[in-house]
Amino acid sequence: MLKKKGTMLSVREDLRILDCTIRDGGLVNKFHFTDDFVRGVYETCVASGVDYFEIGKNNSPTLMSEDEFGAWNFCKEEDIRRIVGENNTDMKIAVMSDIGRTVKDELLPKADSVVDMVRIAAYAHQIPEAIELIEDAHAKGYETTINIMAISKLFESDLDEVLETVSKTPVDVIYVVDSFGSFYPEQIRKLTEKYLKIAEETGKKVGIHAHNNMQLAYANTIESMVYGTSFLDATISGLGRGAGNCPLELLIGFLKNPKYKIQPLLKFIQDEIVPLEKELDWGYSIPYMITGQLNEHPRSAMKARAEGDTQFVKFYNSLLDAQQ
Amino acid sequence: MLKKKGTMLSVREDLRILDCTIRDGGLVNKFHFTDDFVRGVYETCVASGVDYFEIGKNNSPTLMSEDEFGAWNFCKEEDIRRIVGENNTDMKIAVMSDIGRTVKDELLPKADSVVDMVRIAAYAHQIPEAIELIEDAHAKGYETTINIMAISKLFESDLDEVLETVSKTPVDVIYVVDSFGSFYPEQIRKLTEKYLKIAEETGKKVGIHAHNNMQLAYANTIESMVYGTSFLDATISGLGRGAGNCPLELLIGFLKNPKYKIQPLLKFIQDEIVPLEKELDWGYSIPYMITGQLNEHPRSAMKARAEGDTQFVKFYNSLLDAQQ
Repeated sequence: MLKKKGTMLSVREDLRILDCTIRDGGLVNKFHFTDDFVRGVYETCVASGVDYFEIGKNNSPTLMSEDEFGAWNFCKEEDIRRIVGENNTDMKIAVMSDIGRTVKDELLPKADSVVDMVRIAAYAHQIPEAIELIEDAHAKGYETTINIMAISKLFESDLDEVLETVSKTPVDVIYVVDSFGSFYPEQIRKLTEKYLKIAEETGKKVGIHAHNNMQLAYANTIESMVYGTSFLDATISGLGRGAGNCPLELLIGFLKNPKYKIQPLLKFIQDEIVPLEKELDWGYSIPYMITGQLNEHPRSAMKARAEGDTQFVKFYNSLLDAQQ
Repeated sequence: MLKKKGTMLSVREDLRILDCTIRDGGLVNKFHFTDDFVRGVYETCVASGVDYFEIGKNNSPTLMSEDEFGAWNFCKEEDIRRIVGENNTDMKIAVMSDIGRTVKDELLPKADSVVDMVRIAAYAHQIPEAIELIEDAHAKGYETTINIMAISKLFESDLDEVLETVSKTPVDVIYVVDSFGSFYPEQIRKLTEKYLKIAEETGKKVGIHAHNNMQLAYANTIESMVYGTSFLDATISGLGRGAGNCPLELLIGFLKNPKYKIQPLLKFIQDEIVPLEKELDWGYSIPYMITGQLNEHPRSAMKARAEGDTQFVKFYNSLLDAQQ
């Protein structure tokens, strides 16, 4: 039986908040954030006591268009330093690597970089390539995570094999990722139990990355946390692809550690997010609810939102048809 | 130890969905819905398999202004029948009574009314008056519920006394009500356990009525349900005062009983809710998050929303000041 760690009033010293506003938000606008905005998120996170700040992806400019995507899709060392300098703060810097878009030889040794953590996002079938990246980043001196995506589409036996495999790597954190925002709290708890068992046997931590398709990103994050997950992903105002993520301001409102402060977040939201909401579209809506309930990738919902399509019955039935 | 009732895949025969779109939504527009809109919600609920439809409040026209409030604040028999006729459906009709605004002698005998259920909303200190209304409605032939409000502000020993007292009445359902949207799933589970214990001893059912201040209305509803709550309140698109309620379309997407259908809800949302969202303001936003986190009545947040005030830091600090 899974036991709770801590109580409603206790401080869990193992908890780490990871802000991925720029990285997951970059999926909304192809990483075209201004330096001022990125610096604003960075400084807000420092002031709020956030533990890790994910500044973007480290895709290779040899594999993706620098005309199409903004700087935070590539995260060159000089671009990061333009924002964070030497990062003389208690907050660590993270970047995310995509399989097939990252060239491992481009990753600098840790001694030459302000980046502290490399997070590797991979589908189950990409695990061998993910392991190469994990081993390389670990050997170069970085903390590493593995974010196994789309597990709601996997056979459980395949997930077990993936977990068994990654548990033998030097990876520091294994993430429960709800790519399609399709998991209910009961399922998140069972997944947390599964991940924790294998992580604790091998001295690793577990993380949670949730999406808000069914208004459950925050609930699933605290459900997973209550049962022992240590790394909690969140974004300011839930900014992120599709229905977005667990809102950082909700998460910080729940946590009892006095080092976390909500006012800097409220300030950034009133100054920067309120105007941004007029330009970019993200967050819970009916099309995202439908793809979440049907355990589908949100791309059809993103298309419906972009086109202003509110024919929800037709949308629902077309997805049902596609599943048959 | 609280046990789960049913599994992710089972049908719970004790479950009842209660739609309160018109009643809780009436708090947004002082019950000024058109007959077409009310009939639309009624027919949508019938088609979706909803079990109870709460059409409004039965306040007395002798105590409140009929000029200020629309028909659904009073629910006269002829007004209800104009919408539902004899209600020859499987769905039952409910109205809500407020303490101090309802005149019990105005309640018709059940034989003369299409109403099936009277729900009594009361603060702890109003329980003696609530019991009078429960006994009167029960004697006249109605099903009854007691919705004890603002329990997040009560001492637990006082709540225990309230529950002990209402358990001795003929009331059929005791509702866990999260008036300020301030409860976390762990707290909802503890409350569910407390309510269920006393309800099961006295042959009653438990209900849940959640608000969405912290994006937890749906999560809290299914959390409470999983542990044995039978009556589940929801509204279409969460329409309701302030941050709104548990969205009915999310709830129906979760439940496995094939009698519940989502398409009629999607149709009503695309036809009626999408335009309504341009006129009325409800649903999750930062001011409601703040009152929820601070366990305060949403009235200050409603004022901020009405004024378009997005000075969130000032708003937060003013509430903190008021609590000191």
